[in-house]
Amino acid sequence: MNDVIKQYIVEKEPYYHSVTDEVALYEAAYSVRMPMMLKGPTGCGKTRFVEYMAWKLQKPLITVACNEDMTASDLVGRFLLDANGTRWQDGPLALAARYGAICYLDEVVEARQDTTVVIHPLTDNRRVLPLEKKGELINAHPDFQLVISYNPGYQSLMKDLKQSTKQRFGALDFNYPSHDIETEIVTHEGGVSADIADKLVSIAERARNLKGHGLDEGISTRMLVYGASLIAKGVDPKDACRVTLVRPITDDPDMRDALDAAVTTFF
Amino acid sequence: MNDVIKQYIVEKEPYYHSVTDEVALYEAAYSVRMPMMLKGPTGCGKTRFVEYMAWKLQKPLITVACNEDMTASDLVGRFLLDANGTRWQDGPLALAARYGAICYLDEVVEARQDTTVVIHPLTDNRRVLPLEKKGELINAHPDFQLVISYNPGYQSLMKDLKQSTKQRFGALDFNYPSHDIETEIVTHEGGVSADIADKLVSIAERARNLKGHGLDEGISTRMLVYGASLIAKGVDPKDACRVTLVRPITDDPDMRDALDAAVTTFF
Amino acid sequence: MNDVIKQYIVEKEPYYHSVTDEVALYEAAYSVRMPMMLKGPTGCGKTRFVEYMAWKLQKPLITVACNEDMTASDLVGRFLLDANGTRWQDGPLALAARYGAICYLDEVVEARQDTTVVIHPLTDNRRVLPLEKKGELINAHPDFQLVISYNPGYQSLMKDLKQSTKQRFGALDFNYPSHDIETEIVTHEGGVSADIADKLVSIAERARNLKGHGLDEGISTRMLVYGASLIAKGVDPKDACRVTLVRPITDDPDMRDALDAAVTTFF
Amino acid sequence: MNDVIKQYIVEKEPYYHSVTDEVALYEAAYSVRMPMMLKGPTGCGKTRFVEYMAWKLQKPLITVACNEDMTASDLVGRFLLDANGTRWQDGPLALAARYGAICYLDEVVEARQDTTVVIHPLTDNRRVLPLEKKGELINAHPDFQLVISYNPGYQSLMKDLKQSTKQRFGALDFNYPSHDIETEIVTHEGGVSADIADKLVSIAERARNLKGHGLDEGISTRMLVYGASLIAKGVDPKDACRVTLVRPITDDPDMRDALDAAVTTFF
Amino acid sequence: MNDVIKQYIVEKEPYYHSVTDEVALYEAAYSVRMPMMLKGPTGCGKTRFVEYMAWKLQKPLITVACNEDMTASDLVGRFLLDANGTRWQDGPLALAARYGAICYLDEVVEARQDTTVVIHPLTDNRRVLPLEKKGELINAHPDFQLVISYNPGYQSLMKDLKQSTKQRFGALDFNYPSHDIETEIVTHEGGVSADIADKLVSIAERARNLKGHGLDEGISTRMLVYGASLIAKGVDPKDACRVTLVRPITDDPDMRDALDAAVTTFF
Amino acid sequence: MNDVIKQYIVEKEPYYHSVTDEVALYEAAYSVRMPMMLKGPTGCGKTRFVEYMAWKLQKPLITVACNEDMTASDLVGRFLLDANGTRWQDGPLALAARYGAICYLDEVVEARQDTTVVIHPLTDNRRVLPLEKKGELINAHPDFQLVISYNPGYQSLMKDLKQSTKQRFGALDFNYPSHDIETEIVTHEGGVSADIADKLVSIAERARNLKGHGLDEGISTRMLVYGASLIAKGVDPKDACRVTLVRPITDDPDMRDALDAAVTTFF
Repeated sequence: MNDVIKQYIVEKEPYYHSVTDEVALYEAAYSVRMPMMLKGPTGCGKTRFVEYMAWKLQKPLITVACNEDMTASDLVGRFLLDANGTRWQDGPLALAARYGAICYLDEVVEARQDTTVVIHPLTDNRRVLPLEKKGELINAHPDFQLVISYNPGYQSLMKDLKQSTKQRFGALDFNYPSHDIETEIVTHEGGVSADIADKLVSIAERARNLKGHGLDEGISTRMLVYGASLIAKGVDPKDACRVTLVRPITDDPDMRDALDAAVTTFF
Repeated sequence: MNDVIKQYIVEKEPYYHSVTDEVALYEAAYSVRMPMMLKGPTGCGKTRFVEYMAWKLQKPLITVACNEDMTASDLVGRFLLDANGTRWQDGPLALAARYGAICYLDEVVEARQDTTVVIHPLTDNRRVLPLEKKGELINAHPDFQLVISYNPGYQSLMKDLKQSTKQRFGALDFNYPSHDIETEIVTHEGGVSADIADKLVSIAERARNLKGHGLDEGISTRMLVYGASLIAKGVDPKDACRVTLVRPITDDPDMRDALDAAVTTFF
Repeated sequence: MNDVIKQYIVEKEPYYHSVTDEVALYEAAYSVRMPMMLKGPTGCGKTRFVEYMAWKLQKPLITVACNEDMTASDLVGRFLLDANGTRWQDGPLALAARYGAICYLDEVVEARQDTTVVIHPLTDNRRVLPLEKKGELINAHPDFQLVISYNPGYQSLMKDLKQSTKQRFGALDFNYPSHDIETEIVTHEGGVSADIADKLVSIAERARNLKGHGLDEGISTRMLVYGASLIAKGVDPKDACRVTLVRPITDDPDMRDALDAAVTTFF
Repeated sequence: MNDVIKQYIVEKEPYYHSVTDEVALYEAAYSVRMPMMLKGPTGCGKTRFVEYMAWKLQKPLITVACNEDMTASDLVGRFLLDANGTRWQDGPLALAARYGAICYLDEVVEARQDTTVVIHPLTDNRRVLPLEKKGELINAHPDFQLVISYNPGYQSLMKDLKQSTKQRFGALDFNYPSHDIETEIVTHEGGVSADIADKLVSIAERARNLKGHGLDEGISTRMLVYGASLIAKGVDPKDACRVTLVRPITDDPDMRDALDAAVTTFF
Repeated sequence: MNDVIKQYIVEKEPYYHSVTDEVALYEAAYSVRMPMMLKGPTGCGKTRFVEYMAWKLQKPLITVACNEDMTASDLVGRFLLDANGTRWQDGPLALAARYGAICYLDEVVEARQDTTVVIHPLTDNRRVLPLEKKGELINAHPDFQLVISYNPGYQSLMKDLKQSTKQRFGALDFNYPSHDIETEIVTHEGGVSADIADKLVSIAERARNLKGHGLDEGISTRMLVYGASLIAKGVDPKDACRVTLVRPITDDPDMRDALDAAVTTFF
Repeated sequence: MNDVIKQYIVEKEPYYHSVTDEVALYEAAYSVRMPMMLKGPTGCGKTRFVEYMAWKLQKPLITVACNEDMTASDLVGRFLLDANGTRWQDGPLALAARYGAICYLDEVVEARQDTTVVIHPLTDNRRVLPLEKKGELINAHPDFQLVISYNPGYQSLMKDLKQSTKQRFGALDFNYPSHDIETEIVTHEGGVSADIADKLVSIAERARNLKGHGLDEGISTRMLVYGASLIAKGVDPKDACRVTLVRPITDDPDMRDALDAAVTTFF
């Protein structure tokens, strides 16, 4: 395996707690190299899942955090000026296609529609990537697969994937884990007792009911792990919850009171 | 034939199932090198058709996925910095015009109107491409032909081809194939029995009736092939349909229920 | 004559059928080097006319398809990086001014107003072109003339020529030719009998009456030549008309029916 | 005098017919190097006037046609890449300030407000031009003067000079010349008899009354000279007027009829 | 420690007066390297706090004043042209991640959402920074921590952090200090007697009550220090207050009168 | 003193007529290096004042005319390509900070908010300027001071300084001088008798009363000096006033009549 691509191998098994049949479905999709779309809210574990699958399948994983300024060149590659003139440098997508990695485009809806168009020839039966500036046509490596993540709550008139893009992907739904699984995750990741973790998950569940009623997003599993790790460092649980669960997601005084009240109910 | 252009030859006959007289009409158009416009919805086989024709006519095919950021230089070419100063590099359109390929501009309506203007001198009786930056005037190779694809459903006030562009093309309409032909395609491409394929096509037909009533686009033939290939891998048909036919195209709960119901009717 | 400019000589007499006194008027305008504006709808022969005049006057013709992204540098020229540093390269306008060509800016209204400003000093009595980046002032060659085309139907609040630009040009109106002349053109260019050509022209005339009543533009002479050439290749006239006259200009079902009906009236 | 600046000397006396005391006022303004603003409609002779004054004062004249895309660098200068690294090249404003030319910014209101800001330090008592990119401060040559032109009819909410710019200039109003003076100009410049010139001026006067009642601008002196020169070449006066006076400024059928009627009244 | 990073060590203890338990909470957060968000109004001491903590923890501090034009490259790094071709130069974020500094993004809400996306992989359990242009993946140094500041009063529909960004941070609230603490700060920093400082703080408190009633922001501690230092230089207190407390924050005559009245109440 | 910075020394005492205690207040502010904001209408002497103070304090003065296109690099510096690769060139702000000049940002409100952010670290107690692209942190020279000018009349929803910027400055108000002082200035600067100057000032005072009633700005002291200098050259006073006081600031016929009437009242 090429040296450049080797650094993208996930060496250690990432901690991932399966929720339903998503691992089996993904394996079937990968076996036919179907491009996949992971849908779900912020911080519910989509990125962790794709890392886990890359580790399980023993394929390198190249992750790209998409953004509005990303150009096609940022994905595909560009010429760099060198002592001997120009030298081509593969972008992450070309690298993945050439050497057979899983390429994960995180929050793909942030990218401009036109940037996402460059993935089209890689997602139909051609599985090619034209490097137009270099005049080369990459035939994707047999191991290559494309995965994108997508937060449906972000959809707006301005930012949504085109139908002609969506139709190129199979889709898996993600959501926050069930109470027991989430408690187990917070215990394991945050280094606290199951009792503390249970209380943190309960607080989160109350906050998630407020989504759409003054909160844009609920409290994510990641935030609970943050809270737990402060508690594990000896910070008072109420202070830890204030700093990691309440203050980051709202500046509205009423909403803060509601969330602070939920915290004091449990601690 | 030039080495650069050789890589664009379609080596293997692409699987294409003719729908009506489109093959004969295209051959006549090509015989007078008339620029052609392929119209139709996402995933109904336009790209496959042009690949098939390129194979049948034994002409190289250069495909460009159009997008809003594509500049005229991306089509025509640019100077690259080299150890010995600058070196001209033909863009895909110049390459096709110079060596006699079919140049296929996919989803041309995504390109800015001004980018599409560069094709004008290639689409009237002059058949020339001025490389203004290089000060060269390419007289198109006798084999050169320009083909564009166009999804009428995308038309909006902001994005449509100019009349002065449209009038330079003959046009062929494409649509989803008839029930029997589509069943045959899904059987062949997805590796499932005719019975399974028949059911998948029936589900698609129900979804296509919802287009404009909550769905932006119907389920395409490509999606059916995706679903079939998961089933062929042993995934439960209902799961396969959920992952490949329903979740990718809608996040609306009612629409999901309607589509899931259509799935359970057949599986 | 300079080698670069020689390739812009129109070698062969272009087929052009004069409509009224436009050839004589243009010759008088050229004799005083008056900048000219050719007005008229898409595909009615403006480009062909200027090619014919260039051939008749035996002057090189440099054509520029204008677009929104065209910068002043695209017209005037720029420095290119070279093995020995930078080298100036004349743009098409500078080339024409320096060596005495007719410079034809096609669809000038597509260019940004500010780009069109660079033609001002060439269109008053100074007849100079300042190459500000090079620090040179080109005094236009005595043979130089500037011609622009302009489709009045495109005018909008956003895109129109400035008065201070319009007033620098004499103007000639163009329109579709009369029935007999257009029949002759279609016969000659499309390779069909006068009878077929006559029917095609009649169809076009019906469609032109629909302009502004559901059609943005009528069927142009160029489209008729396309239709004729398919018929000459043995395509059924109704199919040929569908592909070349109807499908390219409208996706509206009612308008398609109306045009198809016009076709079946004659074929 | 520097070689670069020498090419901007106006060698031959430009034909200019004084209207009132504008020559004397300009001479007084120049004697104190007051920056001047020439106001008036398109084609009434502002550019000719400044050429005449430059010739009369025997100072070089550097004219810049302003536009929206003009950056400060286009006025001030930039570094160019060279065989020996970068080389500074003065822009037209720096050239004029350094060697003592009159710098004429034509249609300055077209430039972005921020570009016009670079002229501020040259228009107050400091008379300096900071070349920030080069780290040089040019002290303007004693002969340097800045002149701008300005068409009040163009003012809009979006495009107007800032008060802090306007207050840096003395202002001279220009308008179309009186009947007799304009007749003399058309006779002289257009090469026709005084009788023909008189008729042309009369047509223009009728059109100018329509300004604001369907016409954006009246017929300018420059257009009359165009019409006269076609007549002098033997073109029928009615045809010449149609091509040079009517068609260039309006596409409105009623307005065309009104102007054509004015033409037939006199010819 | 690397030479480049050494210059970012805070050598001298910054004067910082603790308000509540923010120092202990920050230390706990740093011990688990939790990314932190400091919230509060302009000039209340957020920047001073992070400098103090960097000094206390003896970690280098790299501060970036965020703005709308900041690109991902400004944070991450870019290739520079060199005598030997291109050379990579780490941006402030890459520098901090590579050598273990605290990276402080001041007024992060000013940056475009897409720029802030580059911090995502540094703020979840991966703690990596992909340098896509260089093809390198930086694993953050164990000492690295990310801190951002955020003024909730600035939130608008256009400019706010995305939920998926906010949820990656613990949050600490800041506000103006209590009367006694602020008096102590002004005495210490402004070099005036406690009595003068007390009066200045009292003026500020009156002004802060006007926030939202004609004033966008109250008078900050920093402004009081400015006022004190003018008084310490012998300027009349009323003049000093006018110049440093009133004129900078409002041009509204009524508001000026109200603030001037508050000044004369105390001096 | 460095050679580059030496050219920014104000050699000759600028003519400045003090209005109130602004000179003493500025000296006190400079003694603590407080950043200063000069507020007032166009042409009332803000630029002259800062030149005078720079001369009085014997510090170099670097003036930057701010504009919308000014990037942070224009203030801070950039890499230039050189025979030996790239070379860093300090921008005006870096130059001033490094060598101890007064840096005067004229009409700072014209700059984009994000450009103004680069001045923040220079205006709090850190007094540093991070050159992020160069990886250098400039500690400001002890003599360095930042001064900005600001025309409150220009404030709009789109263009205003951020509160977090305003609060970093002490502020001095400027306005047109009193009748006697302004007469003295016009006499001195314009080279006319006190009687003439008195009349010019009286005209200006009438015009200033029209501000907000049809005039955007009043007649400034600078314009009176212009008028005086034409009169001193022998131009008729009424003509001089027309050219320098009336025509530059209004195109409205009624307003012109009102101002012309004011002129004839005195001359």
